[in-house]
Amino acid sequence: MAWRQHQITLPAVRRGCHLVTSQVLAGIPELSQIRIGLLHVFILHTSASLTINENADPDVRIDMETALNHLAPENLPYVHTLEGPDDMPAHVKSSLMGPSVLIPVKDGRLVLGAWQGIYLCEHRNHGGPRQLVLTLQGEE
Amino acid sequence: MAWRQHQITLPAVRRGCHLVTSQVLAGIPELSQIRIGLLHVFILHTSASLTINENADPDVRIDMETALNHLAPENLPYVHTLEGPDDMPAHVKSSLMGPSVLIPVKDGRLVLGAWQGIYLCEHRNHGGPRQLVLTLQGEE
Amino acid sequence: MAWRQHQITLPAVRRGCHLVTSQVLAGIPELSQIRIGLLHVFILHTSASLTINENADPDVRIDMETALNHLAPENLPYVHTLEGPDDMPAHVKSSLMGPSVLIPVKDGRLVLGAWQGIYLCEHRNHGGPRQLVLTLQGEE
Repeated sequence: MAWRQHQITLPAVRRGCHLVTSQVLAGIPELSQIRIGLLHVFILHTSASLTINENADPDVRIDMETALNHLAPENLPYVHTLEGPDDMPAHVKSSLMGPSVLIPVKDGRLVLGAWQGIYLCEHRNHGGPRQLVLTLQGEE
Repeated sequence: MAWRQHQITLPAVRRGCHLVTSQVLAGIPELSQIRIGLLHVFILHTSASLTINENADPDVRIDMETALNHLAPENLPYVHTLEGPDDMPAHVKSSLMGPSVLIPVKDGRLVLGAWQGIYLCEHRNHGGPRQLVLTLQGEE
Repeated sequence: MAWRQHQITLPAVRRGCHLVTSQVLAGIPELSQIRIGLLHVFILHTSASLTINENADPDVRIDMETALNHLAPENLPYVHTLEGPDDMPAHVKSSLMGPSVLIPVKDGRLVLGAWQGIYLCEHRNHGGPRQLVLTLQGEE
């Protein structure tokens, strides 16, 4: 039984959804030694989020941003407005998508469907670098 | 300490939310041997999802579908439309509900509230069979 | 390798989002002994939920309630209405936020961003006490 934990920093990206599967994998090389296990990916922020979605057509990422703006519009009667009109919607989107993904591991690889990838969703207009905590556990 | 992992196939269901707790349990018989642990259920698709919700009144499943269609309507200005008008909303719903549930295990049983059950939400009009990965860990 | 599991009861709170990080921590004192691990917090109900969001400005909690009411309004054509107009929206919100959070543990502490806290979101007008199952695992 092994536990491994690393913190990685993803560089700032523009507002929207971005595929980060390869960056996550690069951050946890011990994955290749796990026969059965789980990889937990957790973001240390409340205005960006992690989710799993379609990894092939970049248009899906554009449409996810469209849908997120529909779900959490900037013109609701928010009280928390000091940090700009994109801030409170960012907090809402962050809870809707969630701060983490938990992915099965088998024979040294993530078990993902053919079309699944890990998304970093940046909900701020100017979000800055984002910190992820990767926690791997399993049977070697 | 035990790790067990199985992949199961759920038969195609019509669009909407379906209670699948018993099918999940049937797929992981080793659950009965775990004193304290966690069961992870993960769907290998991006247009169907898993969630936990009310297990008693089938009307709740009907209303969840109503609410999901309100949340992710088909008439947003989507770019990814080649696979039909139900496809991009399916991807949105899939991230809103999420691809997995993680449930405590105690004394050989899932620890669920009296009214909690596992839902498979099929977001496509014609979705096909769906693959789930069950990962069980815990103290025997 | 250690597994610890406790059930705690949070007293009834008014409808809305509430910061409960300290109540969760008080319920799992063994956290201090874990070098690397994960804490799973799971709510045994389908009309209240758990999420992670901003821990500093109480206005964010007010605005989360505003956004949740926008996402799951009471006036959709619901079938399940016997338990009152706030019941079915509560089930929708419960799946949107989710029944659990899973948080990394390092050197005896939760690994959370500076602005992250655990929210209990009460979606009923009169919700009653809420049961949480805390499952801790990790390397001592």
